Amino acid sequence: MYRSHNCGELRIADVGKEVTLSGWVQRIKNRGVLNWVVVRDRYGTTQLVFDEERSASDLLEQSKTLGREFVIQAEGKVIERESKTKSMATGDIEILVTKLTVLNAAETPPFTIEDETDGGDDIRMKYRYLDIRRNPVKNSLIFRHKVAMEVRKYLSNQDFIEVETPYLIKSTPEGARDFVVPSRMNEGQFYALPQSPQTFKQLLMVGGMDKYFQIVKCFRDEDLRADRQPEFTQIDCEMAFVEQEDILNTFEGLTRHLLKEVNGVEVDKFPRVLYDDAMRLYGNDKPDIRFGMEFGELNKVAQHKEFNVFNKAELVVGIAVPGANTFTRKEIDKLIDWVRRPQVGALGMVYVRCNEDGTFKSSVDKFYDQDDLAKWAEKTGAKAGDLICVLSGKKDKTRAQLSALRMELAERLGLRKPDEFAPLWVIDFPLLEWDEESERYHAMHHPFTSPKPGQLALLATNPGDVKANAYDLVLNGNEIGGGSIRIHDKETQALMFDYLGFTPEEAKAQFGFLMDAFQYGAPPHGGLAFGLDRLVAILGGQETIRDFIAFPKNNSGRDVMIDAPATIDNEQLKELNLKLDL
Amino acid sequence: MYRSHNCGELRIADVGKEVTLSGWVQRIKNRGVLNWVVVRDRYGTTQLVFDEERSASDLLEQSKTLGREFVIQAEGKVIERESKTKSMATGDIEILVTKLTVLNAAETPPFTIEDETDGGDDIRMKYRYLDIRRNPVKNSLIFRHKVAMEVRKYLSNQDFIEVETPYLIKSTPEGARDFVVPSRMNEGQFYALPQSPQTFKQLLMVGGMDKYFQIVKCFRDEDLRADRQPEFTQIDCEMAFVEQEDILNTFEGLTRHLLKEVNGVEVDKFPRVLYDDAMRLYGNDKPDIRFGMEFGELNKVAQHKEFNVFNKAELVVGIAVPGANTFTRKEIDKLIDWVRRPQVGALGMVYVRCNEDGTFKSSVDKFYDQDDLAKWAEKTGAKAGDLICVLSGKKDKTRAQLSALRMELAERLGLRKPDEFAPLWVIDFPLLEWDEESERYHAMHHPFTSPKPGQLALLATNPGDVKANAYDLVLNGNEIGGGSIRIHDKETQALMFDYLGFTPEEAKAQFGFLMDAFQYGAPPHGGLAFGLDRLVAILGGQETIRDFIAFPKNNSGRDVMIDAPATIDNEQLKELNLKLDL
Repeated sequence: MYRSHNCGELRIADVGKEVTLSGWVQRIKNRGVLNWVVVRDRYGTTQLVFDEERSASDLLEQSKTLGREFVIQAEGKVIERESKTKSMATGDIEILVTKLTVLNAAETPPFTIEDETDGGDDIRMKYRYLDIRRNPVKNSLIFRHKVAMEVRKYLSNQDFIEVETPYLIKSTPEGARDFVVPSRMNEGQFYALPQSPQTFKQLLMVGGMDKYFQIVKCFRDEDLRADRQPEFTQIDCEMAFVEQEDILNTFEGLTRHLLKEVNGVEVDKFPRVLYDDAMRLYGNDKPDIRFGMEFGELNKVAQHKEFNVFNKAELVVGIAVPGANTFTRKEIDKLIDWVRRPQVGALGMVYVRCNEDGTFKSSVDKFYDQDDLAKWAEKTGAKAGDLICVLSGKKDKTRAQLSALRMELAERLGLRKPDEFAPLWVIDFPLLEWDEESERYHAMHHPFTSPKPGQLALLATNPGDVKANAYDLVLNGNEIGGGSIRIHDKETQALMFDYLGFTPEEAKAQFGFLMDAFQYGAPPHGGLAFGLDRLVAILGGQETIRDFIAFPKNNSGRDVMIDAPATIDNEQLKELNLKLDL
Repeated sequence: MYRSHNCGELRIADVGKEVTLSGWVQRIKNRGVLNWVVVRDRYGTTQLVFDEERSASDLLEQSKTLGREFVIQAEGKVIERESKTKSMATGDIEILVTKLTVLNAAETPPFTIEDETDGGDDIRMKYRYLDIRRNPVKNSLIFRHKVAMEVRKYLSNQDFIEVETPYLIKSTPEGARDFVVPSRMNEGQFYALPQSPQTFKQLLMVGGMDKYFQIVKCFRDEDLRADRQPEFTQIDCEMAFVEQEDILNTFEGLTRHLLKEVNGVEVDKFPRVLYDDAMRLYGNDKPDIRFGMEFGELNKVAQHKEFNVFNKAELVVGIAVPGANTFTRKEIDKLIDWVRRPQVGALGMVYVRCNEDGTFKSSVDKFYDQDDLAKWAEKTGAKAGDLICVLSGKKDKTRAQLSALRMELAERLGLRKPDEFAPLWVIDFPLLEWDEESERYHAMHHPFTSPKPGQLALLATNPGDVKANAYDLVLNGNEIGGGSIRIHDKETQALMFDYLGFTPEEAKAQFGFLMDAFQYGAPPHGGLAFGLDRLVAILGGQETIRDFIAFPKNNSGRDVMIDAPATIDNEQLKELNLKLDL
């Protein structure tokens, strides 16, 4: 038996007990005649004490041979600590050690195992197993487990069945790039790793499983943007005999449950925002609504003067930045530089100071009088003390630019509070989106998404106007889930593939099994998938997902700890009937 | 709203309620003036009634247009059924329908959706989504979910943390063949899909996670034997600061919990059988102990006469088959043919009838008298009415042959009862096993398994005698789990790789990250993995795993439903820097 207790559980009530603890050496305070050693495990830390008076003399000497991160076992008696500390949960007691065993010595770790470490990102990735010892990472992984368990319990209690779908499936040209797996037994053929279990969950609905979920790894071979991983985890869900309303209620229930159980936060019914409204009010289909700063469109009140920049713009739009009237001229100039960065891409920014005395001072005073600016303030909801920032240009671009500025300012002003949660549904997404490059429409969600009832005919005349039974769940400016009511009859699905440019042969080759399945009694169905990595990060109050993944890959898709991917034997290649072609 | 109730929940107390049901047409009984339609969903079946007297006339006609597996929605009133039936949970009531909607028509399915279907294996695999509608498959998947949930709840309550380990890892030459995944971003390099998360779970122990588990897909590119799948699911577990005893107790607790919660069965403390004893008593390291028929070694009582077959044999060994004295001569001859089949490979079989009057009649009466045979009966535990079957030859082969015979006879005699559960631990496995082909020792479990304390030195002199801290959990003749206490120091691990024929360079290239990790304070640790597919099948009282997997592959590793694997575009190959070499 290596331990009688863990390192986080002993309290003043345990004084007098003989205990055995095992763990890692966190700290050593050597005072010559006294030596304190703090031992750590997953559950906490406990102070061990060795002293000249009360310990056998060789034991005190032995304790001095310990180093950081040594794995030790200590037997001894729980005693009350003289100088109690609130900084440790066990801070009322310490262990007067009677026997000390070194279970494994340790080299000095390449970075300190402390909450605030001295290790950079790269070294911590290489020695991830050491990074996991640090509380911020360890607690993130435990938090992730807790979230996943609560998801499973909630859905299971609601009659959802977790069904495992296959990982070795078939490559489809639609969507992102697949990872493929050469088959040795089927020469010249490849499996693909799933980008999502989409078709399988639909087949489970055809199969009568009624309510399905799965927490499942998915794979996309895309060039990695920051904070994206080639393998990621989804909470994948599907329900039969449901309308959009049923799905929104079910997963609003799940999200509310998580916020309550995991964060102790109660939230009201989630607002539902039309996609068009989200774009108009926030320039974004995943708005952060923890703070206001809604867009005010100014065309009507800004295009009647001689200011040509605005007059020729498709959209003039502004936001009121609360309390930002105090920004210095220099700060505002920097803000203008910021919106001009290529990543944002605005040509410039007009601003209006809303003075405390009710007057306005703008960068375009040459063109606009106080009455004009008062109207701008009204449209953007600006109050005395605010700063109005105005951008103009092509509608979509300008909205995106102002959205970026809105998020940046909210961040700087501390309005994006990690412990505040503002979920909402964005609904009525367009069915199709125009792709400039291929000059055709693509499915905005995926080709299985159903159009709004009665809008099928519009596809022929105004495809861009057709709305879908598609919805996203947005939390604090992040899309944490998205889904749709699916097409469930063969004819509509064939029509959709046709609109998306598939020939009947291509559609049959790729999705024949799904269309076949639709002939044998497919129920109305729909679903949604959450991105677990992001969901957990946001619930954990973090912006980045990396600490919530035990062994993440870097931006080149490499696992630098195990050094993967790697070359393989020629023999392995030969067995797979492959040759490198570099 | 598609339904107010599901098809399995209405009872006599619901009579009078207006309800809406949705589901599939299971059966139609058309009596002209009366039409009954049974509608089915995941939760059960309910009878709908349409009749000339009580239904609108067009509704009766409409109901006659339905076909099997049509997806329908029916509104109506719950009424008491005249001829109640116990064969349906809802058999006390039926629905007098007032409105019928066909949600989706259906082609006649290629096989009947009934518990006993007329569909063969191949057609059911191709239309797996229809097969899943059948109770035996549907209930197996629901059962699997229930088992997995109980595993998660139990381990989670015991402070285990489920941690997701990566799927895109690194290929290792040790063990079975890996599936590999070409990396586009890292030219000429490949990921491998994990055969198990072995090294990652050990790194999590080095990382202080203390108690880890994961229900996780694993992959092996092996030629498929019957009832093996290229992708399979493990309950993977690891604990730090434990000895073998701690692990056995923990997972005995889990198994006991499952048997209780899922099967309603209470079992005693699991027997622990030494590997050597399992081989001696059952000829098998995964004995089925639901029935006796333990081996009796007969060398001492059968090698003193003129019967040379026995005299020159390394082992003479028999089993007492209960009640089998009644076997006819013809039946016994068939049994002898059975052991002579190439799959078993015995040269012949000696038998002894234990007559009810206490006398014996054997096939070797020429050589052995009643006193001799009485001793055989004593050694094999045979009673009056039993049949003793005796095989002889080389020790290992003969044991395997008699084990096969023992299982076959138990099966024929109905002794392998699917609702009886007899778990046991097999412990003290050998560390190494001799491989005839490569003429060297291989790790029997895996190269991370620790030898028994104090036996390390034996490696140099008698490697085959070294026992490992390795154990299997056996249930009803199947290995459902196995694991070991691991090596946790770099020196021992290096020594082990050396004994297994790795050069230091190979060991470093393949497992350098693990040996590095051992330098930085690795705790003593060990673990175990259950095969979930098999565990679920056995708990479900089945011999084959296929019905417990939603979308299984066939024996060529193909998914015949989606037709995977498949060829991929040349463009895809080019992006991966690969060429086919057929």
